[in-house]
Amino acid sequence: MTDLTTGTGRTADEARIRELLADRAAATAERDARRFLAYCAPEIVTFGLAPPLRCTGPEALDQEAVEACYATWQGPVEVTPTRVEVAVGDGVAFAHGINRMHGTKKDGTPEGREVELWFRATVGLRKTGGVRRITHVHESVPFLMDGSGLAALGLKP
Amino acid sequence: MTDLTTGTGRTADEARIRELLADRAAATAERDARRFLAYCAPEIVTFGLAPPLRCTGPEALDQEAVEACYATWQGPVEVTPTRVEVAVGDGVAFAHGINRMHGTKKDGTPEGREVELWFRATVGLRKTGGVRRITHVHESVPFLMDGSGLAALGLKP
Repeated sequence: MTDLTTGTGRTADEARIRELLADRAAATAERDARRFLAYCAPEIVTFGLAPPLRCTGPEALDQEAVEACYATWQGPVEVTPTRVEVAVGDGVAFAHGINRMHGTKKDGTPEGREVELWFRATVGLRKTGGVRRITHVHESVPFLMDGSGLAALGLKP
Repeated sequence: MTDLTTGTGRTADEARIRELLADRAAATAERDARRFLAYCAPEIVTFGLAPPLRCTGPEALDQEAVEACYATWQGPVEVTPTRVEVAVGDGVAFAHGINRMHGTKKDGTPEGREVELWFRATVGLRKTGGVRRITHVHESVPFLMDGSGLAALGLKP
């Protein structure tokens, strides 16, 4: 997406948001829940890959819950953002892209089970006191409208 | 979400975005594909309920495809936005909420099949030439992480 202004301010803002998203992905790979959550505002509303439909502040920012999620994986949980587009305005910004998640899920065997999942991610940010924080995250895969009720877990961009 | 400024400008902007979302929902109920699409920018990127992962401009704005989707329903397709929160800045805004979709799907019987689906919706907007247009839509339900591969189609907020 092109910048709204011709100045360099917005470009620098967009670069910072892209860095933020990249660092969040790196924090996931390193299973660093505290760092992963550090960019979020207390009033965050999240729509996650798994139920429920919607989580808010305290629940969405529960570090132990994120660590419990990491604990279902062996080793790093690689998340690679692709096709990222960023819209930056004064005070409000949003970004969206397709993420590749890759790693080995614990399944009771020594080898575990390799998982690759491509999912959509949208992030909304607001600036408060000069600092941009994430106030909204929406992550998902589509579902098959063929009556099977199945999520479309095997899609690639 | 509270406004970023104490002035009334942002409040008026937020009110306009809420009206836009309400009118889009009304257009769906009335099966008016042209009106439903009229708020979208040509460069829109959509993450829809059904595959693919991602649609862009021409494909996402295909009026005949929207009409074909409406044609799978008998009568109105009610969409009711709930828990809507709006973040408005200069030039960029986003909104998110939980939508209830309700209607009767054609299934070959005279009665059809009643469907109620609660899903998450995030909309990103940019202002160009003084007009806010939708540049991003992300709609989804979560999926069950229990190995079943099923989408969570029965959730309510």
